[in-house]
Amino acid sequence: MSVGILERLAKGPVVGDGSMVFTLEKRGYALAGPWTTEAVVEYPEAVLQLHREFVRAGADVLQTATFFSSDSKLTTGKRDYTSKEINDAACMLARKAADENACLVCGSISPAVPLDSGRKNQHLLAAEFTKQCNVYREHRMDLVTCEFFNNIEEVEICAVEMKKLNIPVSLSMRLGPGGDEKGVSVEECAVRMAKTGADMIGTQCGYDINTALNVMSRFKSALQEADLRPFLSCQPQGMLCPEVEQSPAGYIALQEFPFAVEPRIITRIEAHQFARKAYELGVNYIGGCCGFESHHIRSIAQELQSERGIVPPVADKAVPFGGDALKLSTVNEFHNGNRSTREYWYNINKGSGRPYQSALTEAAMQTGYPGRMYLQ
Amino acid sequence: MSVGILERLAKGPVVGDGSMVFTLEKRGYALAGPWTTEAVVEYPEAVLQLHREFVRAGADVLQTATFFSSDSKLTTGKRDYTSKEINDAACMLARKAADENACLVCGSISPAVPLDSGRKNQHLLAAEFTKQCNVYREHRMDLVTCEFFNNIEEVEICAVEMKKLNIPVSLSMRLGPGGDEKGVSVEECAVRMAKTGADMIGTQCGYDINTALNVMSRFKSALQEADLRPFLSCQPQGMLCPEVEQSPAGYIALQEFPFAVEPRIITRIEAHQFARKAYELGVNYIGGCCGFESHHIRSIAQELQSERGIVPPVADKAVPFGGDALKLSTVNEFHNGNRSTREYWYNINKGSGRPYQSALTEAAMQTGYPGRMYLQ
Amino acid sequence: MSVGILERLAKGPVVGDGSMVFTLEKRGYALAGPWTTEAVVEYPEAVLQLHREFVRAGADVLQTATFFSSDSKLTTGKRDYTSKEINDAACMLARKAADENACLVCGSISPAVPLDSGRKNQHLLAAEFTKQCNVYREHRMDLVTCEFFNNIEEVEICAVEMKKLNIPVSLSMRLGPGGDEKGVSVEECAVRMAKTGADMIGTQCGYDINTALNVMSRFKSALQEADLRPFLSCQPQGMLCPEVEQSPAGYIALQEFPFAVEPRIITRIEAHQFARKAYELGVNYIGGCCGFESHHIRSIAQELQSERGIVPPVADKAVPFGGDALKLSTVNEFHNGNRSTREYWYNINKGSGRPYQSALTEAAMQTGYPGRMYLQ
Amino acid sequence: MSVGILERLAKGPVVGDGSMVFTLEKRGYALAGPWTTEAVVEYPEAVLQLHREFVRAGADVLQTATFFSSDSKLTTGKRDYTSKEINDAACMLARKAADENACLVCGSISPAVPLDSGRKNQHLLAAEFTKQCNVYREHRMDLVTCEFFNNIEEVEICAVEMKKLNIPVSLSMRLGPGGDEKGVSVEECAVRMAKTGADMIGTQCGYDINTALNVMSRFKSALQEADLRPFLSCQPQGMLCPEVEQSPAGYIALQEFPFAVEPRIITRIEAHQFARKAYELGVNYIGGCCGFESHHIRSIAQELQSERGIVPPVADKAVPFGGDALKLSTVNEFHNGNRSTREYWYNINKGSGRPYQSALTEAAMQTGYPGRMYLQ
Repeated sequence: MSVGILERLAKGPVVGDGSMVFTLEKRGYALAGPWTTEAVVEYPEAVLQLHREFVRAGADVLQTATFFSSDSKLTTGKRDYTSKEINDAACMLARKAADENACLVCGSISPAVPLDSGRKNQHLLAAEFTKQCNVYREHRMDLVTCEFFNNIEEVEICAVEMKKLNIPVSLSMRLGPGGDEKGVSVEECAVRMAKTGADMIGTQCGYDINTALNVMSRFKSALQEADLRPFLSCQPQGMLCPEVEQSPAGYIALQEFPFAVEPRIITRIEAHQFARKAYELGVNYIGGCCGFESHHIRSIAQELQSERGIVPPVADKAVPFGGDALKLSTVNEFHNGNRSTREYWYNINKGSGRPYQSALTEAAMQTGYPGRMYLQ
Repeated sequence: MSVGILERLAKGPVVGDGSMVFTLEKRGYALAGPWTTEAVVEYPEAVLQLHREFVRAGADVLQTATFFSSDSKLTTGKRDYTSKEINDAACMLARKAADENACLVCGSISPAVPLDSGRKNQHLLAAEFTKQCNVYREHRMDLVTCEFFNNIEEVEICAVEMKKLNIPVSLSMRLGPGGDEKGVSVEECAVRMAKTGADMIGTQCGYDINTALNVMSRFKSALQEADLRPFLSCQPQGMLCPEVEQSPAGYIALQEFPFAVEPRIITRIEAHQFARKAYELGVNYIGGCCGFESHHIRSIAQELQSERGIVPPVADKAVPFGGDALKLSTVNEFHNGNRSTREYWYNINKGSGRPYQSALTEAAMQTGYPGRMYLQ
Repeated sequence: MSVGILERLAKGPVVGDGSMVFTLEKRGYALAGPWTTEAVVEYPEAVLQLHREFVRAGADVLQTATFFSSDSKLTTGKRDYTSKEINDAACMLARKAADENACLVCGSISPAVPLDSGRKNQHLLAAEFTKQCNVYREHRMDLVTCEFFNNIEEVEICAVEMKKLNIPVSLSMRLGPGGDEKGVSVEECAVRMAKTGADMIGTQCGYDINTALNVMSRFKSALQEADLRPFLSCQPQGMLCPEVEQSPAGYIALQEFPFAVEPRIITRIEAHQFARKAYELGVNYIGGCCGFESHHIRSIAQELQSERGIVPPVADKAVPFGGDALKLSTVNEFHNGNRSTREYWYNINKGSGRPYQSALTEAAMQTGYPGRMYLQ
Repeated sequence: MSVGILERLAKGPVVGDGSMVFTLEKRGYALAGPWTTEAVVEYPEAVLQLHREFVRAGADVLQTATFFSSDSKLTTGKRDYTSKEINDAACMLARKAADENACLVCGSISPAVPLDSGRKNQHLLAAEFTKQCNVYREHRMDLVTCEFFNNIEEVEICAVEMKKLNIPVSLSMRLGPGGDEKGVSVEECAVRMAKTGADMIGTQCGYDINTALNVMSRFKSALQEADLRPFLSCQPQGMLCPEVEQSPAGYIALQEFPFAVEPRIITRIEAHQFARKAYELGVNYIGGCCGFESHHIRSIAQELQSERGIVPPVADKAVPFGGDALKLSTVNEFHNGNRSTREYWYNINKGSGRPYQSALTEAAMQTGYPGRMYLQ
């Protein structure tokens, strides 16, 4: 029988998975715009294959492919499936892949009915969450999490429903340095999330690895000051975008979103660096969101291989920094010196190959980076 | 019964597939260095899934996942499988995926025994090719091709073996503007390939979309002058790298190869532009190699949708430039104006998100770009 | 007789001059390192010529070339001149050039004895300032200013001495968003400078045009809140360097300082944009420091030509954005369309011509830009 | 009495001067567009001062400030001076500055009447050249040169007139790798220039230091093959612009020309590197054109100080790479380690400070760099 999430977190850093719907869109199984996951019903083998890649990469936990799969969101997208149908199928697929390496499965809830100050919407929202939680109870999820929220009030409503499941609860928000969409500060969000009694809190999606680490550092300070001690999670999106760090929309504010973001995707080397920094900061659950593919997740698992005492299943086909396999390359003659070292990979530049384009782009909105009066 | 490749080529541009082994490496099913495809035996469902993505994307032809799968190469990599085992399994997997949309399957041969001027090696090399060709005969391939060669003499030896199959023959070379590894010019390579009697000739891998189009333009002129009329193919690799265009190693000369090339990967918008230019140039077979994933191939198929009169199967999950689906995004409020247009996507910059890094990098070798005495 | 500085400031924006010692170094008349101005004695015609360029460009005020010309600094540099000798010569040269267009002359004082908390050093510092002030009294300066200070306490000591002259007093500091070298905030520095009774306060040197405007915006808010109303000045240095904005050293923290900063020098178009923004912000005295040459100052004067009702003397040789003169170019055939418009120049990119180099560089120190945990 | 140019060239590399009219435009003494030098009459002290800076920097030869100062060009620009007036004044100013350090003066001729195949224009052109040569005879120039030509036929016509002076003759062309404006190859231009009997031939203006060195390398090979042995000169313009190297307009094809080229200006470090490479290539006369200011020329003189056995006059105010003077900087505490070394300056990056802008820009014309079908 599989070890539970709380024991795993207590023992050492846990490796999360990467992006589902964002990667499925690239592969041809999800529509950009609605970003819903009816593929779990329509193309189950494609979803299963993606889960399996994360298992091989070394993920300890798989999240269900249930992004925006509340009935309210599914209606918006004019989809042909109910929330229950999609959540059922998603749970089964994640569990099937997870069982191949004794991984855990995490039911995932994302924003549903937009909240305003009225009580009515709060009830509608809670009802949507309840429907999803009921499916997660039936499928005996190992934990539940929320994701993509950037309104602390909605997170609190969601937490109430999740706590009723009597399984470990994780809360995460899409938070940049400017706080949530109402301007509630990073620090207040952290403290309020912890005060719901959640076992783990953190950030996810929206911002890049650098911004995410800075925000997590502020989480840590705020929690210490409030004498609160939840586990910490960090699952940033995988595209570098410092210029939108002040925007409440984060990476969505990029001009290039969603069809021209390739140049910003992190390399596996940057994933190594992220994993190390997150570990040093005391983050207990390290994974990724949109843009993180299995080679990024395996870099996280490989980076923390000795600390965790766990070699990821992918080891037969992937050695950290290349290893002896890379030296077998018949084109090795072209390379001056040994590339199979951390030092080599940490010290090269990474060119865009696009000398006619800039490093940063003006965002779609006035994002205030790096200052209101930037003349360029 | 499926329409043959020659009829398809005669009717209009044919869409090829993208990278197999390079993508399998990212997904955890192939080792960087040997770059062999024993995954067809070990992880067949992962290979099948990748083939299926290309079918959904709109590829007309699937190439077998048989890179470096001659016995001589497999020995080098200390693999546990014979060439016959791998080629058998690869043929079956490609056929299974192809049959889901009446696609064709192309048996693919890559460099084997290094050639020197001695006759002995020529015989050894021909023998390796024969072994693979025999498998392709058994599996009734719809056509055969060679790939990754950058020595015209080896291509000619391979062509002799392939012609014996009595099926359509495609020849392609990894060619930059400097010609093959012995310095045989682009023009001479084109003419000599055509003179083998091949049905289609072209370039593949090694160089990026810009370089490939320039080389294909020189193919065209050279063939016109020699009054030769084979079909033309173009399957560049998907990483932008103008600085190594003069290097015989092409993209392999990049410092960032193979673990830090993400910033150079083309966007789907660049794939649209490539498809249009290739079509205008008269290329009959348009696909990709290392770095081309299914979203790139579907951009090729979508770009030429009206000229070909074929809507790719992926249409339920992917609309060119986003379409109405993209407008359903709940974050649309953040975007000023309509993103679902070709004009929008053709006119934005693509930032690297890495202001501390350069656009180009010094290659591992002296590549002569953009001149022998570049002072920077 | 020339109109005084206070009347000029009351009437509309006043144009300052640009860099003296930094430009003299490039021209071969000042040593990088000591940055002292003994050229006023040794090469007076070179200093005079540079003053004249600023007069022609449209400067209303010339600052004396007296950077680091206190006796304590001159000793450090092992120079052969006394402070009095240099200040005498500098006053005469500036006055000679100023009289050619009824400009004003401003005696300038920069940091001298390093201050610590002891009273003794305060007295030594005040004594140095007194010596320079005495020269400015003799030469009937039209105003005095301090420059390059980034310690508010030293500025206050200097102000006491300057006030004794009974001429208009300007105070300026080298201030980034992080405040002075002791961490005194931008806002507190602004208020304390104003409370000395100075006629004009502002920022100068150290930071670039973008950072300077952001800091001046904070000056304005802080002064409004404190109900203080001095005139405002802004004379940033002319090299773009966002990555060191959090460093107390500012541009000095750049790896490229002082011998490889050319790529960062602002264009005259950026000087136009700076002048407009500064004017809109309510800055009354607009000039530049290190890196601002006469073509930058004339862009400031040309940008505000109609608001000020003053056409700079250089008009016979310089038309804003090129004008009809630019169209006379015999190479005009190469240019598609009209370049002589603001719109043209505001909408082009400005390439570095160095694709192998980055946009930003890591600073010599940990500067914290754009965040403590930047992984690149 | 001063040593003649031929003896100097025979002894070791000669240092030329930098840009006159381009720098005078920045300083407010020449109009962009006509680019004529009536400043020699109107603002003689400004021209004299610029000459003096080059003398101090270490130039052995000063060129007269006579760009576009034929009567035909002066008419185009609607100037109020005759060619004779301007050439007279220019000769006197250059001589005055040259005499301060026993430098030589070189009369300079630039393109005049546009040539077509008709004989009439050839005569008109020769007549213009004769007028200028007559002034140079009167003023006993030490040598004459032509500059900015990119039509070999015009150069030959000019050479005929210059030879009549019976003083050393230098010929230079504005030549990129594509040859002259009629497509005459670099090699043919070199050989035809040498066959006029000129003492020195070379390239000047139009292209950057990298392109110029590559072209000079082709000069050398072509001359060797033709068994011709003139001295070689190289005076590139000072703005890096690889993207226009294939354009007949060279740097003039840049979008940023002439008001936004600052980011492309070479650093003094790049001038050191250029001097070394030119010396190693066997160039006998090393200087610069548009964009080369005195700090660049002094870097050339300092780089070749030991080979030439000549310390430039500027030595009291400029030490190569900073020397002990740089260490006196009171801000040295901010710099980690010693900056006063060649190694330090050769190994830093040079940031543009403009992360929102590209390294290269699309030129105003289709310039073919780096290939006809560049998709970005």
